[in-house]
Amino acid sequence: MSSSPSTSVRDAQRPATVTVESLQHRLDTRTKPQGSLGSLEPLAIQIGLALDTETPVFHAPHAFVFAGDHGIAVDGVSAFPQAVTAQMLLNYLNGGAAINVLARQYGLALVVTDAGIAADPIDHPALSRFGIARGTRNYRLEPAMTQEQCERAIDAARTLASNALSQGSNALLLGEMGIGNTASAALLLHSRTGWALEECVGRGTGLDDTGLLRKRALLRESAQRRSRPETALEALSEFGGFEIAALVGALLATVDHRCIAVIDGFTVSVAAMLAIEMDPRVRSHCIFSHCSAETAHRKLLQRLNARPILDLEMRLGEGSGAALAWPVIDATARLMTNMASFESAGVSDRS
Amino acid sequence: MSSSPSTSVRDAQRPATVTVESLQHRLDTRTKPQGSLGSLEPLAIQIGLALDTETPVFHAPHAFVFAGDHGIAVDGVSAFPQAVTAQMLLNYLNGGAAINVLARQYGLALVVTDAGIAADPIDHPALSRFGIARGTRNYRLEPAMTQEQCERAIDAARTLASNALSQGSNALLLGEMGIGNTASAALLLHSRTGWALEECVGRGTGLDDTGLLRKRALLRESAQRRSRPETALEALSEFGGFEIAALVGALLATVDHRCIAVIDGFTVSVAAMLAIEMDPRVRSHCIFSHCSAETAHRKLLQRLNARPILDLEMRLGEGSGAALAWPVIDATARLMTNMASFESAGVSDRS
Repeated sequence: MSSSPSTSVRDAQRPATVTVESLQHRLDTRTKPQGSLGSLEPLAIQIGLALDTETPVFHAPHAFVFAGDHGIAVDGVSAFPQAVTAQMLLNYLNGGAAINVLARQYGLALVVTDAGIAADPIDHPALSRFGIARGTRNYRLEPAMTQEQCERAIDAARTLASNALSQGSNALLLGEMGIGNTASAALLLHSRTGWALEECVGRGTGLDDTGLLRKRALLRESAQRRSRPETALEALSEFGGFEIAALVGALLATVDHRCIAVIDGFTVSVAAMLAIEMDPRVRSHCIFSHCSAETAHRKLLQRLNARPILDLEMRLGEGSGAALAWPVIDATARLMTNMASFESAGVSDRS
Repeated sequence: MSSSPSTSVRDAQRPATVTVESLQHRLDTRTKPQGSLGSLEPLAIQIGLALDTETPVFHAPHAFVFAGDHGIAVDGVSAFPQAVTAQMLLNYLNGGAAINVLARQYGLALVVTDAGIAADPIDHPALSRFGIARGTRNYRLEPAMTQEQCERAIDAARTLASNALSQGSNALLLGEMGIGNTASAALLLHSRTGWALEECVGRGTGLDDTGLLRKRALLRESAQRRSRPETALEALSEFGGFEIAALVGALLATVDHRCIAVIDGFTVSVAAMLAIEMDPRVRSHCIFSHCSAETAHRKLLQRLNARPILDLEMRLGEGSGAALAWPVIDATARLMTNMASFESAGVSDRS
């Protein structure tokens, strides 16, 4: 952080001006039956608190996709070959992926980052690159990265996100790409919660039964190599991916700003769990976009006391669930801000 | 229908050019793991079939809100006074309601219709009006409307919807407003399914326990007056509202066009059930936007073999759930149409 904090940082340090009660009152005086927006009402209150206003307006939403490769991929934990990470990065840069279609539809600024993929650097003006390593090492055999590498990835993403938030954005959408990263996320989940590994490991992009058994066995071996990392940072260094460390960094940036972060699927939710462990203030900024088809996601969302907006059995990643939920989140703010009150519209309240 | 059918009607009469298989193939060759869009994939196939194209594009989506009043309202079946129907109609015309906020956000053409409200005619250039009656009669004592009135409301809405569809729209979003209309919808549901009345009756806009007991008792008395109407049209005349008849008419219009209709909450779903009974071809055009908090909605959706897109415990009506699901529906078409294929993007498919 620079020594002269930006306007948005200073703004975030002011004492809050709204309360749950003042926000609930605003909701209850809009021209609708009380409570009739269902679970969008607590969401509206969360947004009002995070942005510290009864009339929230989102500006310049940014969709970040962090890409990274995983040493474990060579052992076969995914239905897809590792080369797909770099190929999909090019697809994002060329505008052909799901997240591109959604970002264009919803007016999201898409920021694609090579956080550490196992390929020659891609030279493209729209790509940012951390340059820390070309993928992680195989955590079945050794730590995925050094703690110093992990901190560099966190800091680089924190800076990237802080820049967007300092330049007028108040909404980040967080996504990832990385062949094998549900394996890493499962191991991180297991190591921080103590939940049985079988509960944490799912089919990722679509493993068959044989593939799932292999993934579980590899992760069991990996978990035995280093059974209980003591902190979230240690766990992330042992088992993480650079894209997961980046997600953690972007999330840590939110506490310095009046903003929200929209969490995508399983892997991003695990990153959110780690970021919240590192700084519990992160939680109030997180909006969980969807519950994916990945085995442990629903249980993790419950642990985080999160009610996802969408529940469509998606398992695509790359921020696609966050993007699909975006118009609903944006609508929630707009309803709060732009609906008439009973009084202004001359509508009778309940008898 | 005029004797020289419009282009869109003739178009809809051509034999279909796409199949479930051709649509599934297109989905499976986009740059994403197969099946990873979850329940959006069957939705994409439904859209492709309804629009008869592998590259669907929605044009000029129209949100219709039909308003009507119910004679039974004087007995007290709602938490709100009957005057609210007309007041909310003015709110729609003045742009202050939830549906206005959502229509502006999502670029929906909003069409507000007085299908039969119990108030002096509102003179407003943006309001269409059927002029059949000022609300229904009290179905506890006599049929809500004559069959001729019911058919006039159906035909008027069918013409309104057909006009939009003939002039280039291929997506209708259907909503309603009418104090007391969940009571009417519950009675219609009971009379067509034989489900116990208690299962069909809910709290509407937010009745308390005493109000719910009164609503049930009034509806039991009404159901006993005319126990088993023989057809959907008879049931609609006996227990319906003019806005529900209008919804049925708008839905019947879809079968003549390559289009979709987005179904809002409980009352619109009951209208869809009736329209499908009248013409089973309606079903393939219906996309069910959300499962509301109204008691019987989930069971009704199951009966209609519908998987709602959103499940947010909303109970606002006026097309708000349909509008909130609209960007997801639109996105589903755009993903199908605009995503790159594995081949064109140079991405490896699964190993």
